[in-house]
Amino acid sequence: MSKHLGKASIKFLNKIYIIATASIVGPKEGEGPLSDYFDVVLEDMKAGETSWEKAESKIVKDTLELAVKKSGLNINNIDYVIAGDLLNQSTGSTFGVISLEVPFFGIYGACSNMGEGMSLGSILIDGDFAENILVGASSHFCTAERQFRFPLELGNQRPLTATWTVTGDGAVVLSQKGSKEFPHVSGITTGRIIEMGIKDQNNMGAAMAPAAVDTLLNHFKDFNRTPDYYDLIITGDLGYVGKKLVLKLMKSEGYDLSKNYSDCGIEIFDEKKQDTHSGGSGCACSAVTFSGYLYKKLLKKEINKLLFIPTGALLSPTSVLQGESIPGIAHAIVIENEV
Amino acid sequence: MSKHLGKASIKFLNKIYIIATASIVGPKEGEGPLSDYFDVVLEDMKAGETSWEKAESKIVKDTLELAVKKSGLNINNIDYVIAGDLLNQSTGSTFGVISLEVPFFGIYGACSNMGEGMSLGSILIDGDFAENILVGASSHFCTAERQFRFPLELGNQRPLTATWTVTGDGAVVLSQKGSKEFPHVSGITTGRIIEMGIKDQNNMGAAMAPAAVDTLLNHFKDFNRTPDYYDLIITGDLGYVGKKLVLKLMKSEGYDLSKNYSDCGIEIFDEKKQDTHSGGSGCACSAVTFSGYLYKKLLKKEINKLLFIPTGALLSPTSVLQGESIPGIAHAIVIENEV
Repeated sequence: MSKHLGKASIKFLNKIYIIATASIVGPKEGEGPLSDYFDVVLEDMKAGETSWEKAESKIVKDTLELAVKKSGLNINNIDYVIAGDLLNQSTGSTFGVISLEVPFFGIYGACSNMGEGMSLGSILIDGDFAENILVGASSHFCTAERQFRFPLELGNQRPLTATWTVTGDGAVVLSQKGSKEFPHVSGITTGRIIEMGIKDQNNMGAAMAPAAVDTLLNHFKDFNRTPDYYDLIITGDLGYVGKKLVLKLMKSEGYDLSKNYSDCGIEIFDEKKQDTHSGGSGCACSAVTFSGYLYKKLLKKEINKLLFIPTGALLSPTSVLQGESIPGIAHAIVIENEV
Repeated sequence: MSKHLGKASIKFLNKIYIIATASIVGPKEGEGPLSDYFDVVLEDMKAGETSWEKAESKIVKDTLELAVKKSGLNINNIDYVIAGDLLNQSTGSTFGVISLEVPFFGIYGACSNMGEGMSLGSILIDGDFAENILVGASSHFCTAERQFRFPLELGNQRPLTATWTVTGDGAVVLSQKGSKEFPHVSGITTGRIIEMGIKDQNNMGAAMAPAAVDTLLNHFKDFNRTPDYYDLIITGDLGYVGKKLVLKLMKSEGYDLSKNYSDCGIEIFDEKKQDTHSGGSGCACSAVTFSGYLYKKLLKKEINKLLFIPTGALLSPTSVLQGESIPGIAHAIVIENEV
């Protein structure tokens, strides 16, 4: 008999403790409403490096090291590192992870990376394959813009459906050993790739919303739960446009999410003051919002049952140019406090 | 007490049966020495599609579906699909996997993808999180050349250290249920990212060889084995240049691999007739050599103990242009017959 639950879920037998988190963000995120929750706010986008890509790798390295330090463990206690980013061939993670010298699983789920990483990390720990796992996900506004859209120097106008790629890295240390002081992962629902014909790469919220809905529906069915089980249900980076679609689509399926649903892309920037249009996006959007903000709310027991659903848009500039639509994926993580 | 062994390994408690494999390759691979072992040899590089990228996704889809069909299972019996490729944002896998509608973990370990996927799949099954897993890895000569090197139309001369990206996809179905008829995964050693200063993207063998050596050393130490435990030790895509380096570096560490070591990049093409210089490479190199050739040797009990080590070079065109060296990674899978 498998621990697999329903169509797409796993209910863990053991508590996978989140014993530490770390978050480093860029200047713009430091001006947003969650500023005080982040460990480090960078003063410049290059983080002292000579290119944005090198900066992203530096942020990855520093965040992962900081998470280990905050956990009280030594890097030698970490059995595996799991990390991913948006750059071609995931070089943000690669060059950030080298110096750690720990067995490494590279992942790619676009901006859902934090969800995929925490899923695989929890599986490794629950199955007794590892004692401690380090998971991180990063993105950088400048590396993402020039890779996916236009050279920044062009000063292109952004449509109102566009989101703003978050600069930063969020990391968590998952552990077999913990106490009720720490929140723990109790289950996951793994996303399927969902594609509904959206072709506008400036409307990622609409492209990813159906994937979030698919995962939410599978989750509630597999766990036999309703939305009110959770204090907060929060998707990764759907922004205002995507949130609206999720609310509507879920309502048509008979689920009312109006009371306890938000999106990390909405939480991280100030809608009126920061001019980010539909909100924040990028792997770091959900990663730093969780590692910074949500984790501290969990520690303070202000949230006790959280459904965290990083969302990803699985496009490439080439796939868009070749006329493909933009598929999405969303991985749900159940994080609870022992009460 | 963790199932983790030593620094980087896991010894599985259960047998993870490889109940089926499938392989689809391009025309050039069909002219090579392993031709008869592949399920399908394509007649054209576009596989009936309008672009090379669409062709790669088509090959992914067809290979994954064929593997499920050959296993006697239905796609509904597959709990997770794990897949990866070399394209920016892994679109080869994304667009190939959509129609399967199965929970999906996307991975990125460059040409080590088949090793990473089989590792994670085996973990999911051994830990009783899944009953059946579908793992695949793909690459395509034309999509890779134009993305990593030069437009094909340029007709650039390739240096003798260069390898030839294999076109194709190799897939395996891993299962909790099987019999001694089938080979099984009994352990894994997970790679660390290793970087030794190689900056020549036309010499991937040299860039990846130190990672293969690191994994081999960890493997022999963690499992307390010597090379003669195996009938065959085979790396992913080091080619002639990389194989020579592995033999030399391992010898300097006190391990003689001269009797039972080869590389998939050497097996897949004919050195004299096919003009591929240092040999084959790409995710599909190890994936189709395993799924086609090695798996059948295992079924016939011509090989009973195999150490399969897909190798990956974690570069991107941007990282190369920014003067970064090329890091490598290698994931080892122990595949054995019950005797």
